Amino acid sequence: MLNDRLNAVRNASPLVHCITNYVTVNDCANILLACSGSPIMADAQAEVEEITSICGALVINIGTLNERTIPSMLLAGKKSNELGHPVLLDPVGAGASRLRTDTALELMDKVRFTVIRGNISEIKALSMSTLGGSVAHGSVAHGSAAHGSAACVSATRGVDADVADRIDEATLSSAVYFAKRFAKATGSIIAITGAIDIVCDSTRAFIIRNGHPMMSRITGSGCMLSAMMTAYLAANPNNALEAAAAATCAMGLCGERALARLGASGGSSTYRDLLIDEIYLLDGETLEQGAKYEIR
Amino acid sequence: MLNDRLNAVRNASPLVHCITNYVTVNDCANILLACSGSPIMADAQAEVEEITSICGALVINIGTLNERTIPSMLLAGKKSNELGHPVLLDPVGAGASRLRTDTALELMDKVRFTVIRGNISEIKALSMSTLGGSVAHGSVAHGSAAHGSAACVSATRGVDADVADRIDEATLSSAVYFAKRFAKATGSIIAITGAIDIVCDSTRAFIIRNGHPMMSRITGSGCMLSAMMTAYLAANPNNALEAAAAATCAMGLCGERALARLGASGGSSTYRDLLIDEIYLLDGETLEQGAKYEIR
Amino acid sequence: MLNDRLNAVRNASPLVHCITNYVTVNDCANILLACSGSPIMADAQAEVEEITSICGALVINIGTLNERTIPSMLLAGKKSNELGHPVLLDPVGAGASRLRTDTALELMDKVRFTVIRGNISEIKALSMSTLGGSVAHGSVAHGSAAHGSAACVSATRGVDADVADRIDEATLSSAVYFAKRFAKATGSIIAITGAIDIVCDSTRAFIIRNGHPMMSRITGSGCMLSAMMTAYLAANPNNALEAAAAATCAMGLCGERALARLGASGGSSTYRDLLIDEIYLLDGETLEQGAKYEIR
Repeated sequence: MLNDRLNAVRNASPLVHCITNYVTVNDCANILLACSGSPIMADAQAEVEEITSICGALVINIGTLNERTIPSMLLAGKKSNELGHPVLLDPVGAGASRLRTDTALELMDKVRFTVIRGNISEIKALSMSTLGGSVAHGSVAHGSAAHGSAACVSATRGVDADVADRIDEATLSSAVYFAKRFAKATGSIIAITGAIDIVCDSTRAFIIRNGHPMMSRITGSGCMLSAMMTAYLAANPNNALEAAAAATCAMGLCGERALARLGASGGSSTYRDLLIDEIYLLDGETLEQGAKYEIR
Repeated sequence: MLNDRLNAVRNASPLVHCITNYVTVNDCANILLACSGSPIMADAQAEVEEITSICGALVINIGTLNERTIPSMLLAGKKSNELGHPVLLDPVGAGASRLRTDTALELMDKVRFTVIRGNISEIKALSMSTLGGSVAHGSVAHGSAAHGSAACVSATRGVDADVADRIDEATLSSAVYFAKRFAKATGSIIAITGAIDIVCDSTRAFIIRNGHPMMSRITGSGCMLSAMMTAYLAANPNNALEAAAAATCAMGLCGERALARLGASGGSSTYRDLLIDEIYLLDGETLEQGAKYEIR
Repeated sequence: MLNDRLNAVRNASPLVHCITNYVTVNDCANILLACSGSPIMADAQAEVEEITSICGALVINIGTLNERTIPSMLLAGKKSNELGHPVLLDPVGAGASRLRTDTALELMDKVRFTVIRGNISEIKALSMSTLGGSVAHGSVAHGSAAHGSAACVSATRGVDADVADRIDEATLSSAVYFAKRFAKATGSIIAITGAIDIVCDSTRAFIIRNGHPMMSRITGSGCMLSAMMTAYLAANPNNALEAAAAATCAMGLCGERALARLGASGGSSTYRDLLIDEIYLLDGETLEQGAKYEIR
């Protein structure tokens, strides 16, 4: 199943419009090329509608949002919706500043997202207005818990997930419940990535156990996944949930395979290269065999 | 001959002012350092004239153009013209949006470019207003052909050349004819890069057959060539055409040499590193022997 | 001693707010992760105060400053000062344009910097208004020398140190004298990096002889040091001078270690990866044994 999703990307070579942060933009372009997609980065208001029209899908990543690019995100998102293109939101740092949380929420209000992909802290920050609870902005202190993990007050640790939020086997069930509820509330597929990944719609969740902690020692593994997942969505219009899960498995599996090749003398920068290399080399059969997931 | 062009860069270590996109800017800086040039990136209107004045040449790359940087491109270009510095235009994505096509044309109208370097679709998009024909914006559909390749209606596939436009042995003659006509119309050296590269002025064309398709599986090979070519122009003020051809051969040859070192387990990210490594290691003799070109 | 500074970073994993240039921003994020820090890049006026509040320190790098980001630098710097966070200024290209020099001076006027880190030409350009002399902007010509190295007229060669300014054994004493005077005038630790590095406050200077010329063949070695040094400052609040010196030794030592692993067929891009790898792999004992410094 997952191999079909990967092969569709290899065959379609979808053009993906990226409005993304300038920190990891080069990595995002390279991962898209590695998985056989084709990237185009464009964030000027004067052209984003036209650019997104010639693409197969759009990824909006708010990692270095600003007053110039936020209107472009809205314009491109609305246009993509009109055209029926898949659109993915990566709410980098939602919860870390009011601007990020508010922008992500405004985007969710005005644009219909096929997928919202972030770490648990970011997704929780966005769920507050829909599912209740409140977010403590500009603070690393944790607020008091409210109604279980779904509604607990969350604060992000910069752009990384807060330790207190992390999903492990003990909290997995409640996290899946939360993710499905948020999927229902938003109408989007929710992809929460971390040590264990959850990719779900309102009824069906892929629980994915690929990946390696080394992926958090480089910048961009989340952004790259969002970009690549958007190519998977573009190439698999009738299987969005499976496509999102396949991309998540592919990234995690390649993280494992890169580590296996790294060796003791290798460090984080070589690891980044090997990770992109493995995405370039990955075929459907290897993905099918290496993917570790269950469906709940 | 080509070795002299390379050695001039090694000896002069020219300072190159880059107004370039944020996707491949790091690669552009590193390729300039690798070929013994020295990069300075500056795009604020308040400083571009001053910055370009202390440099030996200017490259304008419109890959992520916006309302803030377009005026800077114009200011820097005009100042460079005043000072007699070489100026190169890389019209990334011309034809993909009206903003890109119009900006490139405005730049060509107000700034005298030593070289215009792009893929065939970009160059065709720019040639419409000079050589006739029209461009279908915001569409991947091909318009009806008009008067041969020189004036056919073109649309870009994002920032990549359209398959229908690609130069192969069958279309090479008409492409060379087109490139020379466009060189005459613009007064610029035209560099069209792809599977076969054409670098020409109005009378003399270098047909270059170095390179490898793997170069299209990383982002930035075109942007890097533009940046490096600008260093070659700066260091070879009396041999601009040969300098542009030498840079094109050097990039293609290093693309081949990088591939030879890559091995079966290597992927696209390692390939990018090896490509820059090979530019760093390249000497004049190797270039002279490895360059595959003819002059028409 | 230096090992304690490194281990503090490994243990504290400080969150560093970066307002930095788009050329080397990915390298800065990766070096921060490699040394066990955590980066967050944010430059919108609407969020920088909030973002810097959740961080442990702030680095302001003016490498691609513009009218949008300069006010953000000021806002974030003042807020960090209020909160007592360490703040580092990297005045990239000061002396190369009036905008850069004036912005750096305005920042120094309105923000209290824990450390100012640059090459000798940049630091000299900034010292003119404090210690006397004048700067020739927009020119690579050297002005006439005035009152010794401390007050000589300086012009930068783009973003690299001017050859005439470079610190060697012959000019070291006067450079140390100059750096201490500038430290006293500014109240900041001054870090001047080059073939020989000087890291000093008004009374005590670390003279550091780690590093390798290969570090100047990649972009970002200075920016990466600034980012990493900021993590060292955050994790060592009571030992700022030692922390700045430790970061400088670490970067230079890793530059040596990367070169030792590079091999004859390696080039500049592989070297960049190895440099970041070595920062990732570096432990306190290796730093302690490999650091080459004296205190004057």
